[in-house]
Amino acid sequence: MITTNTRMITRTETASILKSVDNVLILTHRSPDGDTLGSAFALCRALQSLGKSAKIICADILPDKYSYMFDSITEQDFEPEYIVAVDVADVSLLGKELDFYKDKVNLCIDHHGSNTGYAQKLLLEECAACCEIVYDVINFMGVEIDKKIAECIYTGISTDTGCFKYSNTSSQTHIIAAKLMSTGFNFFKINRLMFEIKSRELIDMELKVWEGIEYYMDGKVAVMTLTKDMIEKAQPGTLESIAPMPRQVEGVRCGVTLKQYKDEYYRISIRTGHELNASAICSRLGGGGHVRAAGCSANGTREDVLKKLLESIKIEMDSVK
Amino acid sequence: MITTNTRMITRTETASILKSVDNVLILTHRSPDGDTLGSAFALCRALQSLGKSAKIICADILPDKYSYMFDSITEQDFEPEYIVAVDVADVSLLGKELDFYKDKVNLCIDHHGSNTGYAQKLLLEECAACCEIVYDVINFMGVEIDKKIAECIYTGISTDTGCFKYSNTSSQTHIIAAKLMSTGFNFFKINRLMFEIKSRELIDMELKVWEGIEYYMDGKVAVMTLTKDMIEKAQPGTLESIAPMPRQVEGVRCGVTLKQYKDEYYRISIRTGHELNASAICSRLGGGGHVRAAGCSANGTREDVLKKLLESIKIEMDSVK
Repeated sequence: MITTNTRMITRTETASILKSVDNVLILTHRSPDGDTLGSAFALCRALQSLGKSAKIICADILPDKYSYMFDSITEQDFEPEYIVAVDVADVSLLGKELDFYKDKVNLCIDHHGSNTGYAQKLLLEECAACCEIVYDVINFMGVEIDKKIAECIYTGISTDTGCFKYSNTSSQTHIIAAKLMSTGFNFFKINRLMFEIKSRELIDMELKVWEGIEYYMDGKVAVMTLTKDMIEKAQPGTLESIAPMPRQVEGVRCGVTLKQYKDEYYRISIRTGHELNASAICSRLGGGGHVRAAGCSANGTREDVLKKLLESIKIEMDSVK
Repeated sequence: MITTNTRMITRTETASILKSVDNVLILTHRSPDGDTLGSAFALCRALQSLGKSAKIICADILPDKYSYMFDSITEQDFEPEYIVAVDVADVSLLGKELDFYKDKVNLCIDHHGSNTGYAQKLLLEECAACCEIVYDVINFMGVEIDKKIAECIYTGISTDTGCFKYSNTSSQTHIIAAKLMSTGFNFFKINRLMFEIKSRELIDMELKVWEGIEYYMDGKVAVMTLTKDMIEKAQPGTLESIAPMPRQVEGVRCGVTLKQYKDEYYRISIRTGHELNASAICSRLGGGGHVRAAGCSANGTREDVLKKLLESIKIEMDSVK
């Protein structure tokens, strides 16, 4: 997928580069999740601990539930000299507000096979979480992994693997978790925040979404819909909990979430079981992602969007028969 | 809590003993869960791989969702010479059908601090899962951890930690998981079965239970109720998914599940956040368990049972103020 003459670099090279630069601006992707934020805050703290200036920007408001990470860094104001994007597969995912940086990214650290190679240098490895790579880079930078860095790295790993549940989890993922846990940070509190605790409003929304579930292709496809109205009422960061839900139903091989952001514009999340390629399904609609979790967007009425999507799912299903 | 002259032994001693005996009967607790079954099947396979006769019994039917473990052992018929209980904190938990064995248990391997010391020898360590201990014992027995043993051990660890989410998870838990994963077994399929996949009937039941949720003590206690009718209709092994649900609500410090097994007999599950001691709450009603997850039972109307329980919760809340 690398289309430009981006130079691929290793973890140790990345560490050397980061040790040699200063005034680092770290970019996350829009609709920030645990992995992009965990990567950004861990890296920022590591750079600051080496006496460098570093800061983070994101096109969207950072969801409250990640607020325990915010005090891991010091706010600093400076003119950026080196720009690093973390967990950002394509410049479009930076969001409109960060458009200015799209051809100025010096280094990208990412774990998406679909990375479009927009940065001058790219550290790309297809592991479970970008935070796994950032963990190694920080080690190679010679920075000690303290409790705060452990919290950030753990957040990325835990959220991107559904707390070690998903197929992207590897032996290495568990080894990193074991090392992080030896710092003694409170991972239970983080997991409670990420996976357990839900506001009564979110629970009500989830119940509503469950009630509206629709099945297609003999129950092999389950579709949940979040209407514009539901999205507007939702707290930032709470919609993530919906995407894995339709795949939970027995017999479902492809779980679909349709999020209506405008009357005729939907963002789509796809989660698949252990056969179908979610990324392939989404790529036919101009999206991408991972093999079991991917996304795309589409214009049109719900009916149009769903029709296109079901066609793509059918192609994928036929291909694995 | 050890009240008899049970002899405490180490992991290596346990391994030596198991290597020296034959015709081993392994007992699990009633209402079998992933940890008691994972421990039993892993140990049984290890013993059989050494050429010994070994078999498992349980007072209740083994839930279908664990069926992938069943073919890890060969069915054998013999007169038991050595009796081992795994993950069984007290003889009463064996269930009435196994009453015959209650004073005949030669060895107990367990991780419950509340173990009553009913066995002649006891290997007790308070780690996340009994399977963690069994993993070490099997290693000390010199048996190779193959894919099937890895599946069983992983099942116990993963189910007892909520897939590495709960506070009982340790560095050691992750290190064992990393080693198990290097055997290449399909952990994703197991996690899908344990944590994700739900029948439409179960989803309907969960929605019903959510709709009936009640809050007490300014929303710090949430109570869910499973009526006799709901329990009778439920598939074996599906009720486990309910117990963690009430603790998910924002602001809830103590999640209660009341399961009505008879008109005036309830089994109670308690799950607490990061302050309250669930085991202390249950022990005042004659039960016990772990610090964040415990259980007890009570006779009486729902009102009576709830009143007694809320009193015990109040004592616990006042003690941590």
